[in-house]
Amino acid sequence: MSMAKRDTYTPESLLAVAVEVFNERGYDGTSMEHLSKAAGISKSSIYHHVRGKEELLRRAISRALDGLFAVVEEAGAREGRAIDRLEYVARRTAELLMSELPYVTLLLRVRGNTGTERWAMERRREFDQRVAALLKQAAADGDLREDVDARLATRLLFGMVNSIAEWYRPESGGEAERERVAEAVVRIAFRGLRTD
Amino acid sequence: MSMAKRDTYTPESLLAVAVEVFNERGYDGTSMEHLSKAAGISKSSIYHHVRGKEELLRRAISRALDGLFAVVEEAGAREGRAIDRLEYVARRTAELLMSELPYVTLLLRVRGNTGTERWAMERRREFDQRVAALLKQAAADGDLREDVDARLATRLLFGMVNSIAEWYRPESGGEAERERVAEAVVRIAFRGLRTD
Repeated sequence: MSMAKRDTYTPESLLAVAVEVFNERGYDGTSMEHLSKAAGISKSSIYHHVRGKEELLRRAISRALDGLFAVVEEAGAREGRAIDRLEYVARRTAELLMSELPYVTLLLRVRGNTGTERWAMERRREFDQRVAALLKQAAADGDLREDVDARLATRLLFGMVNSIAEWYRPESGGEAERERVAEAVVRIAFRGLRTD
Repeated sequence: MSMAKRDTYTPESLLAVAVEVFNERGYDGTSMEHLSKAAGISKSSIYHHVRGKEELLRRAISRALDGLFAVVEEAGAREGRAIDRLEYVARRTAELLMSELPYVTLLLRVRGNTGTERWAMERRREFDQRVAALLKQAAADGDLREDVDARLATRLLFGMVNSIAEWYRPESGGEAERERVAEAVVRIAFRGLRTD
């Protein structure tokens, strides 16, 4: 029976279950026992796929990070004026957060208690620096309002993007809904709520 | 010795310690033992002040909620055009979040597992409805851009405000610093990042 159940799991589907449990109980509060129960397979079946829960954490966080770094490599993030590239990155990051919600949520909650978590925070800082460089360039181009500090603006812009994870539910819509939300972020943050 | 230590505690200072512990361990993960250790007084000394940890949670959350509801009663939130009142509420809510950081952080993390938490969520919804009514009025006045849904705009605006709790540290500055951050929120959300 255990064999049959194990066969239904791939590294990918086991990861999806683990991420749900990590987000619900917190990584520290999750044991292999919890993962085994949630997946409906034995602990030894899990060990057949991964060395332990930290490997599942690393794989899940890698998926979110790979997505973020792919965004800054896209043409829209590399070509054109810095302010437009920044807007592109904000939009695509918002879309990624929604399409990869559990993985990005896990990344956002990382606090640095394990080696994997510290590595994740380091990679997040690298991403933040890429974005901060775009803001700096946009300011140098005269395209960024001068009365808001660039570092503070970065935090508030991505604070708005990341806050989507607090309420967005994937079942509320597909790609069109994700685009609608990301477009609202761009309109508010880059052009403001007020009519001219 | 226990007497002497207990005498140094007021309901106010005990609350401050409890809020720190709740934010660090989570409310569910906090026992009276943890509170007793953090405060450096016996459990019976704590029971001298409050009936239990849920009363501490209720008092802490009340402090944050009372602050929020006081904001919407201020003149700047009641007089003038709705868009200006909304901007005032966003600014003052950001300032309150920073000046009452641990209390507002606790409120933001409430998930509704106890009666007190469900009551807090209900009160938060009331506050959100007050804000949503302002947005609706601003839209009716023609002062709000029409291409962003009001409900989504409310979420994103307060998502930006609430994200300040993720990185703001009270020791980084006093009232002037709080005003600087709140002003940046208003500039970005209401007028946009781009130069005209």
